[in-house]
Amino acid sequence: MNSFGRLFRVHIFGESHGHGLGVLLDGCPAGIPLTESDFLADLARRQAGAKGTTPRVEKDLPMLKSGVFNGYTSGAPLAIFFENQNKKSADYEAFKKTPRPGHADFVAAKKFNDYNDYRGGGHFSGRLTLAITAAGVVAKKICASFQIQAKLIQAGGSSDIEAAIDRAITEQDSIGGIVECRVQNLPVGLGEPFFDSLESLLAHIVFAIPAVKGIEFGSGFEAASARGSTHNDALQNADGLTLTNNAGGINGGLSNGNELVFRVAIKPTSSTPKPQKTFSYSSQSIDDFLVQGRHDLCIALRVPPVLEAATAIVLADLLLITKSITS
Amino acid sequence: MNSFGRLFRVHIFGESHGHGLGVLLDGCPAGIPLTESDFLADLARRQAGAKGTTPRVEKDLPMLKSGVFNGYTSGAPLAIFFENQNKKSADYEAFKKTPRPGHADFVAAKKFNDYNDYRGGGHFSGRLTLAITAAGVVAKKICASFQIQAKLIQAGGSSDIEAAIDRAITEQDSIGGIVECRVQNLPVGLGEPFFDSLESLLAHIVFAIPAVKGIEFGSGFEAASARGSTHNDALQNADGLTLTNNAGGINGGLSNGNELVFRVAIKPTSSTPKPQKTFSYSSQSIDDFLVQGRHDLCIALRVPPVLEAATAIVLADLLLITKSITS
Amino acid sequence: MNSFGRLFRVHIFGESHGHGLGVLLDGCPAGIPLTESDFLADLARRQAGAKGTTPRVEKDLPMLKSGVFNGYTSGAPLAIFFENQNKKSADYEAFKKTPRPGHADFVAAKKFNDYNDYRGGGHFSGRLTLAITAAGVVAKKICASFQIQAKLIQAGGSSDIEAAIDRAITEQDSIGGIVECRVQNLPVGLGEPFFDSLESLLAHIVFAIPAVKGIEFGSGFEAASARGSTHNDALQNADGLTLTNNAGGINGGLSNGNELVFRVAIKPTSSTPKPQKTFSYSSQSIDDFLVQGRHDLCIALRVPPVLEAATAIVLADLLLITKSITS
Amino acid sequence: MNSFGRLFRVHIFGESHGHGLGVLLDGCPAGIPLTESDFLADLARRQAGAKGTTPRVEKDLPMLKSGVFNGYTSGAPLAIFFENQNKKSADYEAFKKTPRPGHADFVAAKKFNDYNDYRGGGHFSGRLTLAITAAGVVAKKICASFQIQAKLIQAGGSSDIEAAIDRAITEQDSIGGIVECRVQNLPVGLGEPFFDSLESLLAHIVFAIPAVKGIEFGSGFEAASARGSTHNDALQNADGLTLTNNAGGINGGLSNGNELVFRVAIKPTSSTPKPQKTFSYSSQSIDDFLVQGRHDLCIALRVPPVLEAATAIVLADLLLITKSITS
Repeated sequence: MNSFGRLFRVHIFGESHGHGLGVLLDGCPAGIPLTESDFLADLARRQAGAKGTTPRVEKDLPMLKSGVFNGYTSGAPLAIFFENQNKKSADYEAFKKTPRPGHADFVAAKKFNDYNDYRGGGHFSGRLTLAITAAGVVAKKICASFQIQAKLIQAGGSSDIEAAIDRAITEQDSIGGIVECRVQNLPVGLGEPFFDSLESLLAHIVFAIPAVKGIEFGSGFEAASARGSTHNDALQNADGLTLTNNAGGINGGLSNGNELVFRVAIKPTSSTPKPQKTFSYSSQSIDDFLVQGRHDLCIALRVPPVLEAATAIVLADLLLITKSITS
Repeated sequence: MNSFGRLFRVHIFGESHGHGLGVLLDGCPAGIPLTESDFLADLARRQAGAKGTTPRVEKDLPMLKSGVFNGYTSGAPLAIFFENQNKKSADYEAFKKTPRPGHADFVAAKKFNDYNDYRGGGHFSGRLTLAITAAGVVAKKICASFQIQAKLIQAGGSSDIEAAIDRAITEQDSIGGIVECRVQNLPVGLGEPFFDSLESLLAHIVFAIPAVKGIEFGSGFEAASARGSTHNDALQNADGLTLTNNAGGINGGLSNGNELVFRVAIKPTSSTPKPQKTFSYSSQSIDDFLVQGRHDLCIALRVPPVLEAATAIVLADLLLITKSITS
Repeated sequence: MNSFGRLFRVHIFGESHGHGLGVLLDGCPAGIPLTESDFLADLARRQAGAKGTTPRVEKDLPMLKSGVFNGYTSGAPLAIFFENQNKKSADYEAFKKTPRPGHADFVAAKKFNDYNDYRGGGHFSGRLTLAITAAGVVAKKICASFQIQAKLIQAGGSSDIEAAIDRAITEQDSIGGIVECRVQNLPVGLGEPFFDSLESLLAHIVFAIPAVKGIEFGSGFEAASARGSTHNDALQNADGLTLTNNAGGINGGLSNGNELVFRVAIKPTSSTPKPQKTFSYSSQSIDDFLVQGRHDLCIALRVPPVLEAATAIVLADLLLITKSITS
Repeated sequence: MNSFGRLFRVHIFGESHGHGLGVLLDGCPAGIPLTESDFLADLARRQAGAKGTTPRVEKDLPMLKSGVFNGYTSGAPLAIFFENQNKKSADYEAFKKTPRPGHADFVAAKKFNDYNDYRGGGHFSGRLTLAITAAGVVAKKICASFQIQAKLIQAGGSSDIEAAIDRAITEQDSIGGIVECRVQNLPVGLGEPFFDSLESLLAHIVFAIPAVKGIEFGSGFEAASARGSTHNDALQNADGLTLTNNAGGINGGLSNGNELVFRVAIKPTSSTPKPQKTFSYSSQSIDDFLVQGRHDLCIALRVPPVLEAATAIVLADLLLITKSITS
C-alpha cells in the first residue's frame, strides 16, 4: 500500500520522529551512475529554511544502503535511508489529547487503534516527501531525455508569490498555492487507455503528496465551460504537433508528443499559527487550540521538487513499460 | 493495464464496433444476489437518447457469462458481456486518414503501429464506460451501506443545465460540464497514507473516464487561495464530525467519517458538429474536417452513473481491504 | 486472484457447467497475426477422446471477442470465450450431499458458504485448463523463438505409457504420471533473484494446473542425495554452456542459456471408477460412494499442452519485462 | 520483483558484502507486540556456526528502523535492517574472472552488464534469507494460531543426518538434503483455485530460497505411480477430516483443514571444497578452480527456519485476505 509503480517500483517507509525514513526502489536498470551527492540539489530545493518555510531544518543526507556498486546502480533493489536528527517530540505529545484540525491525527488514531506513532504525524508526516524526492532523483536519471519542471505559479490567490508570502508572515496565517508541472520531449504513446491512463497514474501519485486538493490537465476546469469547436487541439503535422494544447499533452490516456502540462492545488498548511477551536478528548468539549512546533506558512513553496519527483516516477515506469512492448 | 483494484479486481475489454465489450470482476464475495435486471437502472441512466446525447442507442443488455449461480454470486470470477448491435463502421473509415482532433485516433495508431481498431475509437471509445458502469452495479452491492450520488452541477459554464443544453443544440457545438459526487455514511479509515490515499485511488479511476480534465476534493482549487485559519475543519466531537468540510471527507488519505465530496471537470465532446481544421495524412496538409457519426453534444450528461460506478469500485475494494486488517 | 503475470496478464473465468469459460489477456503486443484456427492444434492436443481420457468431448471452438482486428492483435485486451455445449448437470447433483474424495467439492462449499457452483466442480473444474491452453497459444507467439515441448514420460509408475493405460482400463482404476517440459533457445537472464525467480514463476503457474503434486528442476529431488563436486555444472565457454545440466537451465533464479528442464508429478484422477467410501452429509456417516459422470482415467495424458501453455505464459511475460530493462 | 504478497507485502534488499541487507514489510496490522529480541530465536536457528555450516558467523542483530512504536507495530511500513560486519571481500575478487560453477556469478554479470555487485554473490547471496527469516518472525505473529514446523528429514541421501554431515566433513564435499514442513490448525479455505492456489503461493516463495530444486505436496512425486482408488483421501466427518493425507492438506488449491505437508529438495552447496574445472574469462579456457571463502557443507541444515518463515509469509497474507472476504 506504500508502493507505487509496475516495473520501476517505489516503496516508502518511516516516520517524522522515529529513527528516520527512506525509500526502496526496485526495478531500477543497472548501470546508472549514482552517488549520494546526486541527491543534494533536489533535496536542497525541497529543504526548509527559506522565508515562509519551517525553521525545522534537517541535514537530510541520503545513505545508499544497497543497490549501488562502484558508483553505479547494480540492478539490485536500491535502499535509501535518511536519519532523523532534529527531533523535538515533546512538541507533539498534546496531539493525543487534541487532534489537530486539518491533520491526520484523528483518522490515524482511529484506523490503527491508537497504535500509530502520533509524534509529528508519524508515518503521515509531510517529511515522507523526502523519500519521494529521493526516488525522483533516480527516476529523473531513467528518463533523462525528458525535461521536467514544476513551479509555484500562485500563492494565497496571487501570482506575486513574494508579496503573498510577506502578507502571510505579517498576518501570521498559512496560505495555499498552485504548482504547475511541465514536461517536454515526451514520446507519443506513454500510458494506456482507461485505468492506466497517463492522467490516472499522475493523479494517483500526486494525491500522495500531502496538502494536494486538486489536479487538472491542460485546460482543466476551464474545459467545463468551453465549447468543442474551440477546445479541440487541431493537429498540424504527422508528428502530432497541435496548434493549441488544451489536452495538456494527453489524448485517450496517452502522451501525444506535445508538452505535458498539469497543475495542482495546494491547501494552506493546517498548522497555522492562528488560534483555532477544536474538540479535545481531555475535556470532551470544543476547546481553544494553538499549534505548537515548527511549521511551514506556505507548504506550496516546497512542493515543486516533490511534484517533479512524483512526475518522474510515473514517467520512468511508463518508459520502461513502453520499451517492453515496442522494442 | 486494463485492470483496477487490489482485492475487488475490475478488468475491462472490448471495442466500440467489434463484437462487443465487457468486464471481468474478480474477488467479489460469494452470496450477493445478482441478476441481469439489477443492471438496468444504472445502464439506463448512462444510456444515450436524452436531449444532448448521441442518437446511437444500444439496448445494452448485460450477459452474465460466469460467476453467478442460482441468482447469487458464487465467489468465482464474474464475466459480464455486452454485444454491439447498432454498428455503422462505414462512418469511421475516414479516421485512418484524418485523425480526429481531441480524440485518441492519432496516439492509438502510433502506439499500436496502426494495428489498433480505429472504428469508432475501438478500445479507446467512451462506450467502454458501459463496462465500468456494470462493474459499479456489483460494487454498489458490496458497499450497500454507503450512499453514493453523482450529479451534473454545471454545463457549458452555467448551473442551469437545461438552458445550457438548449443553447448547445441551437449553436450546434458541444459543451463541457462539472459533475459532483457525494458519499454518505463512510466509516473512518478507508484508504492509506500516501500512494493508496483515498484521493489517489479515486483520482486514478476517475481519469479512466474519457473527457475528465480535472478532479478536486472538498474545497479543491479554492483551497489554493484560502488561509489555514479559515480552511481547517474544526472537530466537533469524538466521532470526528467537523464544523466545515473543506477536506471533502478525507484527511491524511483516509476517510474521516464526514461526507465525501469531490468534483470532476468534463471537457466538451471532441466530436462537435462544427467544421474544424486538422492535419490529413492523405493530403499531408491541414484540411477542413467535419465529424461524421452520431455523437453526444454534452457527454457530461452521461457521466454521473459512470462516476458513481467508479467511486463504488474504489470504495468496495477499500471496504474489503479494511475488513482484512481490522477484523 | 484468477490473474497471472506482470506485463502479459492472464485472467481466467468460467465454470464447467455454466454458460462457458474463457480467458482475458492484457498486455499483448499489437501486430501478432491471430485467428481462431491458430488455437485448434493445441486445443486438440488437450482434447479428450483418446484412450484413457473422458468420453465428454466438447468442440471447444474459441470465440475471439475483442483485441483482434483484421487478423492481428490490436494491442487492446484479448477476450477469448468458449461455450459449454455438452453439459449433463444431473450427473453432479449428488456432490452437494456427498463431497467427492480428492476433489474440491468440500473446500469450495466451505469457502463460498454453499454459494459455489457445484456442477462438475464449477469454477474449480479441470475444464478451466482450456482457458490456460488458449492463453498459451498467444504466449507462444510472443516467445516464438523458444522451443517449448512437454511430454508424458511416465504413467502409473511405468515409462511404457501405452501399457500403463491399458492396465488402467483393465483394472478400471485411475493412474498418475510425470510430465517433463523442455525449452530450448532461451536467452541468459530471464527471471529475477528470489521472489520472481524463473523457478518461482514456473512453479506458481504449474500448481494452477489441477492434479499437480510436485515440480522439480534439472536434477530435482535427486539433488538432495548428490555431492557438490559432481552436481555442479562446469561452465565450458563464455556463452555459459555447461557440461552437465543439473541446474535445469537456471542459476540464481535466472535462465542461464542452457536447456530449461523441469518435471511435474500428476496424481491419478480423483474420479476413479472404483467404489470408494466417504462421508455423506445426508446420512451424516461414512457411505459407499461411486463416481458418476464421464472422467479421465489418466489425466496426465492431457497435461502436456497445458504445461506448455503455462510455461509459455511465464516466458512471454519475462521476455517483455527483460526488453524493458535491457533495451 | 523483490516483492511478495498481496496484503502482507514483503520487500527484500541488500547484498552479502555491502552495507547490509533488510526487509520492508507493508500491510502489517497495528498492535502486534514486537521488539528486536523477538527475532533472536529464529535468527539463531538460521545462524551458521554448527557442524557443517560456514565459519562466517555474523551477529545479525535486527534494527527496527520504522513501523514500531512503544513496542507495538504501528500499522506503518516496518523496515528491518541488518548490517554486514564480518566481510572479507578480497575472497571474492576472483569471481569476476572465473564464474563459480553452480552459482549466479555468470548469469548476474550477463543480466546486469557487469554492473552487479559480485562480492560474495552480492544481492544473489544466500545471506538474503536473513531478510526472509526476519519477515517470517512477524508473519508468524499474524498467524499465531497455526503451528508451523520445518525439519531436515534427509541429508546426503540418508535419514541419519548426523552421520551424513560427518561423512561430508570427512570427504570434504558438500551434500544436499530434504526439508519437510508441516502446519497444523489451518482453517478450511485458505488459497484460491488456479493461479493463487495455496500450492502455487507456497511453491512461488519456496523457490525464492536459494538451492531449492523441487517441491512436493502430500504424496508428491509418489502420486505419479499411485492409483486413484488408494490415493484419494476419504472424508470422515463434516469438518473435512480425512482418513489419509495424500493431498497434503490442500484440495482445489484451498487448505482443507487437515495438516499441511510439503517437502523441498535442497541441492548440495555449490561452494564445495573439492577442486573443480570451469571456464575462466582470463585464460578463455577451462581451468582448475578451487572455491575460496567460508561456506556451508550442507546448506540444508540452515533451511528449516527459512522455510518456516516463507510458509508463514504466505499464510499470514492468505489469512488477511480471507478475513476481507468472509467477515
